[in-house]
Amino acid sequence: MDPKAEIIAVGSEMLTPDRVDTNSLLVTERLNEAGFRVQRKSIVGDSEADISALLREALDRSDLIVVIGGLGPTEDDVTRPAVAAALRRTLTIRPEILAALQARFAQRGHSMTRNNERQAQVVEGAEVLENAVGTAPGMWLEAGGRHIALLPGPPHELRLMMDNQVLPRARRLAGGRRLHTRSIRVAGMTESAVDAQVAAIYGQYPRIQTTVLAPVGYIAIRLQQWLAPDESPDSLQELCDRIRRALGAAVFTTSDESLEEVVGRILREQGKTLALAESCTSGMIGMHLTRVPGSSDYFLGGIMCYSNRIKSELCGVPDEMLASCGAVSSQVAEALACGVRRALGSSVGLAVTGIAGPGGGTTEKPVGLVYAAIADGSGTRHARRIIPGDRRMVRERAATWALSLLRDHLLGLQENPGR
Amino acid sequence: MDPKAEIIAVGSEMLTPDRVDTNSLLVTERLNEAGFRVQRKSIVGDSEADISALLREALDRSDLIVVIGGLGPTEDDVTRPAVAAALRRTLTIRPEILAALQARFAQRGHSMTRNNERQAQVVEGAEVLENAVGTAPGMWLEAGGRHIALLPGPPHELRLMMDNQVLPRARRLAGGRRLHTRSIRVAGMTESAVDAQVAAIYGQYPRIQTTVLAPVGYIAIRLQQWLAPDESPDSLQELCDRIRRALGAAVFTTSDESLEEVVGRILREQGKTLALAESCTSGMIGMHLTRVPGSSDYFLGGIMCYSNRIKSELCGVPDEMLASCGAVSSQVAEALACGVRRALGSSVGLAVTGIAGPGGGTTEKPVGLVYAAIADGSGTRHARRIIPGDRRMVRERAATWALSLLRDHLLGLQENPGR
Repeated sequence: MDPKAEIIAVGSEMLTPDRVDTNSLLVTERLNEAGFRVQRKSIVGDSEADISALLREALDRSDLIVVIGGLGPTEDDVTRPAVAAALRRTLTIRPEILAALQARFAQRGHSMTRNNERQAQVVEGAEVLENAVGTAPGMWLEAGGRHIALLPGPPHELRLMMDNQVLPRARRLAGGRRLHTRSIRVAGMTESAVDAQVAAIYGQYPRIQTTVLAPVGYIAIRLQQWLAPDESPDSLQELCDRIRRALGAAVFTTSDESLEEVVGRILREQGKTLALAESCTSGMIGMHLTRVPGSSDYFLGGIMCYSNRIKSELCGVPDEMLASCGAVSSQVAEALACGVRRALGSSVGLAVTGIAGPGGGTTEKPVGLVYAAIADGSGTRHARRIIPGDRRMVRERAATWALSLLRDHLLGLQENPGR
Repeated sequence: MDPKAEIIAVGSEMLTPDRVDTNSLLVTERLNEAGFRVQRKSIVGDSEADISALLREALDRSDLIVVIGGLGPTEDDVTRPAVAAALRRTLTIRPEILAALQARFAQRGHSMTRNNERQAQVVEGAEVLENAVGTAPGMWLEAGGRHIALLPGPPHELRLMMDNQVLPRARRLAGGRRLHTRSIRVAGMTESAVDAQVAAIYGQYPRIQTTVLAPVGYIAIRLQQWLAPDESPDSLQELCDRIRRALGAAVFTTSDESLEEVVGRILREQGKTLALAESCTSGMIGMHLTRVPGSSDYFLGGIMCYSNRIKSELCGVPDEMLASCGAVSSQVAEALACGVRRALGSSVGLAVTGIAGPGGGTTEKPVGLVYAAIADGSGTRHARRIIPGDRRMVRERAATWALSLLRDHLLGLQENPGR
């Protein structure tokens, strides 16, 4: 039998239209690694009765229950008494936690207010889980063969305690079973084109769960397999390799790198510098590239050539070309790439021009039409695509598509007609 | 007694580390509008037994239960039989739904596959909720005085059916009670500075729930009040007005406009054009401004001056100034704003330069130090700030801070020392 886990996220703010629970994603990942399948997630308000009732239900069906939040110093924080009530146990102040809290406040030159004392309360029989980066400690409890972890809600506290305290305990409970995961990221293909190329392959591995996801800008193929304690992940690796070969150059990473990291790494390895001319994306590609610390090694800068005047005056596109071909054309894209390379003195120039919508489309040049061009010492080339979706989607996909073209160009790859 | 609602999101993919339920945000908003408080949200996998057990629990505590997802044509879609089992009712195919499904497929030139038939199954006693944009119809059920809505998971189908079919029914059940909401957005202040200025005011309105939220880039104050059928929202409006007066120019909207929309509107009204010089933000401000359709009316473009050479060659910053003051200095910020205004021929130039980290900080110029400058026909001014947080936070906050400075400048507002 699979060990089953359940996550309870506590906080009335997550029952409003403003906030979703995202903490459970990290907790799920770690629980899967440890060998637990998550069978239910619940979000409950800061109500002692509600938390208590939910925990009692959870104890009837799950081997491990992770309760997140409600451990702070305010009156809203009622997870401790709720858990004590559900288990019919007492709640007592542990002097050593109280002393540590007081020392922490003193060190910062504050005296501890009375409400913080509740953070020193511990449920009878609990093992205290140290919180190295915050005030509220967690707890690990056993009840009738089931286990409960109480963890604080702030993500950096949660992450540290999940990794250092809950993960090893959960691994021991699961007895060596674990979920192995590999992921493959693909640029420049649609979700259905990816699936069409690889479905026949992953269909041969029924024990591996294959999911094709479409975050904005790339396609991710996630391979997951539950492994018994002594089982090797060989077939997972084999499937990963086969998919990688089938998709060829469209795969830009099997190690969770972002496309901008991959492009940056190649530019650095090749000793090249990059300049951008961005029209419809107006800064998006530059923003992506400079997310990566150290990107100044290869990224010189760029021109957001939103108006035609900037295209001609700063990027050297002839006015006649703009008038005769239009700003969204292969000619202007190539002229922008050449022009920005010359203006900024980079080894490579990358340009994007397109119609993001909602207005501005015509029958010949519909909304979503995007040209990208790359110029370097050996010449200039362009590519054309019609990108479906709204203004935001067109812009985001245009930016990632341009980066994937640049990657292919730097690696000397032919444009794959299937992409 | 408050009418209580509960949301059940069905789908095994939301029990993985990849996906959270976001559909419940829209559903919560609409349920609140209709007068229901959401007391619990649950996420459950595609398991008939699990959905059925959860629904039975929910019927014990909630007046209205919205079940989202699991109504599609595949074997994973088991919401219908699960609900029938929970209520001990039969499930039968309705010929008129089947005919409509077949017609829909025929219209597209496909013949309907057998698995689609399950979408014509209806739980005994259910009112069918039409799905105008998808194949799976929804259902509205009554059981022992409680009500259940079954809705499809695709967001555009869900939204339409929630608005057109569930909202009016929910309003009738709630008998005219509703949640009234106002929201106030503030730029350039910290969450705690906002709270310090307004806590004494909202403390006088105990029936209004005031929440100070900190999405990246601005602070939002949300005011919410449950109103009885014949009650007016006057005191909510009064509190909104008082908070607005207390915060003065820091409030950039009470109508959910984004900061870039506000800045764009002012530029258009004043007949001004804008050019950007972005160093550490490298395209972020340009990207934000051009999210707004029609932004080409006032946004000419900009220069991503990531390297010093671009700052000097394209933006006209003297090399000696870069050498003596450093790229992150008030002098260079002002020179960038003047230079980009001249180079692009705009009425206003806005420049940002800073140290985003994680490397590059010194004792005098720590990570997070950011200068912004604005140049126009009447002169140039700059502002300085040390922004806490990681690379991403520093960049995002620098971009929004610069936009809020621009707004203040365009409106002729003094820099507020409290901000």
